[in-house]
Amino acid sequence: MRATVIHAPHDIRVEEVPDPRVERPGDAVVRVVRACICGSDLWAYRGESARKPGQRIGHEFLGVVEETGSEVTGLRAGDLVVAPFMWSDGTCDYCVEGLNTSCVHGGFWGSIGEHGQSDGGQGEAVRVPYADGTLVKLPADALSDDRLLTALLSLSDVLGTGHHAAVGAGVRPGSTVAVVGDGAVGLCGVMAARRLGAERIIALGRHQARTDIARLFGATDVVAARGDEAVAAVRELTGGQGAHAVIEAVGTEQSMRTAVGVTRDGGAIGYVGVPHGSGTGLDLGEMFDRNIALRGGVAPVRAYIPELLPGVLDGTLDPSPVFDLAVGLDGVPGGYRAMDDRTALKVLVRP
Amino acid sequence: MRATVIHAPHDIRVEEVPDPRVERPGDAVVRVVRACICGSDLWAYRGESARKPGQRIGHEFLGVVEETGSEVTGLRAGDLVVAPFMWSDGTCDYCVEGLNTSCVHGGFWGSIGEHGQSDGGQGEAVRVPYADGTLVKLPADALSDDRLLTALLSLSDVLGTGHHAAVGAGVRPGSTVAVVGDGAVGLCGVMAARRLGAERIIALGRHQARTDIARLFGATDVVAARGDEAVAAVRELTGGQGAHAVIEAVGTEQSMRTAVGVTRDGGAIGYVGVPHGSGTGLDLGEMFDRNIALRGGVAPVRAYIPELLPGVLDGTLDPSPVFDLAVGLDGVPGGYRAMDDRTALKVLVRP
Repeated sequence: MRATVIHAPHDIRVEEVPDPRVERPGDAVVRVVRACICGSDLWAYRGESARKPGQRIGHEFLGVVEETGSEVTGLRAGDLVVAPFMWSDGTCDYCVEGLNTSCVHGGFWGSIGEHGQSDGGQGEAVRVPYADGTLVKLPADALSDDRLLTALLSLSDVLGTGHHAAVGAGVRPGSTVAVVGDGAVGLCGVMAARRLGAERIIALGRHQARTDIARLFGATDVVAARGDEAVAAVRELTGGQGAHAVIEAVGTEQSMRTAVGVTRDGGAIGYVGVPHGSGTGLDLGEMFDRNIALRGGVAPVRAYIPELLPGVLDGTLDPSPVFDLAVGLDGVPGGYRAMDDRTALKVLVRP
Repeated sequence: MRATVIHAPHDIRVEEVPDPRVERPGDAVVRVVRACICGSDLWAYRGESARKPGQRIGHEFLGVVEETGSEVTGLRAGDLVVAPFMWSDGTCDYCVEGLNTSCVHGGFWGSIGEHGQSDGGQGEAVRVPYADGTLVKLPADALSDDRLLTALLSLSDVLGTGHHAAVGAGVRPGSTVAVVGDGAVGLCGVMAARRLGAERIIALGRHQARTDIARLFGATDVVAARGDEAVAAVRELTGGQGAHAVIEAVGTEQSMRTAVGVTRDGGAIGYVGVPHGSGTGLDLGEMFDRNIALRGGVAPVRAYIPELLPGVLDGTLDPSPVFDLAVGLDGVPGGYRAMDDRTALKVLVRP
């Protein structure tokens, strides 16, 4: 089959790789119908996260089950399924608690582990370990609804990750929320905050195409400034106090500093931007003096899919506008370039 | 009157200072009956927190009201009262929410602010701003019970701070808790965790006098190792997973690293050790991967006094064993030396 491979920073290729097949009795093979490129893929693309030359990439996909191993009981060939961005067994202590990202048998698509190279999501098909624990079945008729398929794909990562940030930030009915980061996750954080009942949602962002989506998703205010000016603007909008719940969806030193600055004393930062620069940007002294909590991390999106799926199916949650460029598999290298240049927000892949 | 003054690192003196008097209508003057020395005073003593030469020091005291300003309505001369380690107006948004440490009119005993030098707690008397908001009345008959007076003094800081850490760490009935720090706050954290229903409490500490108190306060296990060995020992005690709720009561890079290491995936660190080394020791990457939350800060002990006072009065909460050395006012400089040498755990002052 053909799949996306990263050879070096800025060197993404689509190549012939071995066809996936059932290797263990809990496996399924899924033919990919929709995949996409994630902001976090760009860390590898830019060389800021290490990858082996020739490693597979891509961790968001939905598709149709082609084949299942002998121990798979909940799925069969022909099922439409969505995969979260990690696989998990669904049965260990952590999975049972809903922290599937800490699954004792879990792993990332495209990673190289003890069983060798796993398939990435940006390819024609994927071997899915622990298929019963990992995959979530979708209504088959979604296959004929292009807009819905795109919205459902967001369950693979960005919608669940935005939700995790909103939960970590402690968004409640009536909350004032600030969202740092205007990428797909930040925008989904706006949507998740609105779903949780936030009364006021302040989106920080300077690109009108993105802030227009933020408003569509529920943002009541937009702050176009950055850094100290953004902090001052959010404080001005909130009677000098800041937002009780802050979503941090970038992961840089600057963004974390902004997040701390816009948080109200006693409030919380829900952080889901993959940290780059360990500990930097976290002024623990300021957080201590003002009792600011930090809660979040890699989002257990598998656990959130059952909660979020009904809203996506009935259209009340529609993150599809974050996908502003669609490509075929051959277009994936160009899709990375477009996201790196910020000419595309999030790239949809139809293999 | 006589009060404690810090002239330079390791130079603590007891000197004649101006008598406190009612300066503003919300003030009260309190004659100090019990005060003490805090682990956080040692940061100033060691020169790691800046103080002006000649600045007052001490922030924990209880005593008898001598005089009140014209606007003070809830207190009168002769009342026995305990002061939290900061004053607060009791009426601003933050105070109403129970975050008195963020009070818009709040301040620290011994600080130098727009109204000049405030009194410290380690002296014969204290001018208390916002007396109605700040002070909490105690039963007058406690004055004749030396053990009870000492226990009540812990409401000024260490018991409420330990409670704040336990709340921040998310201690619930049945929780497994680890406590990093065997000072008075860590030990009070053990007591607070027991009060909140923790089933297992693992105290980290190497000094038997202290770990004996930890066991008295409810610790079920003691780990005497430090650093990576302590992390390994806590993991061994918890089926490899770590503790869901971790109390961090030191504030150094090393202690924060240990706290992260002993926290179970998805768990929380309640941190109340004043941070020294901003951001250091926080491996945000590890916290992200394992969804570890950080919640705490300077404890709003004023808000906790009503909740904790009944237990102190009925004897179910008795932190008095943390006070292992008692001195008069002249003994305060020696008390600092004893705590700095770790020959005393916490020094009680009877002015």
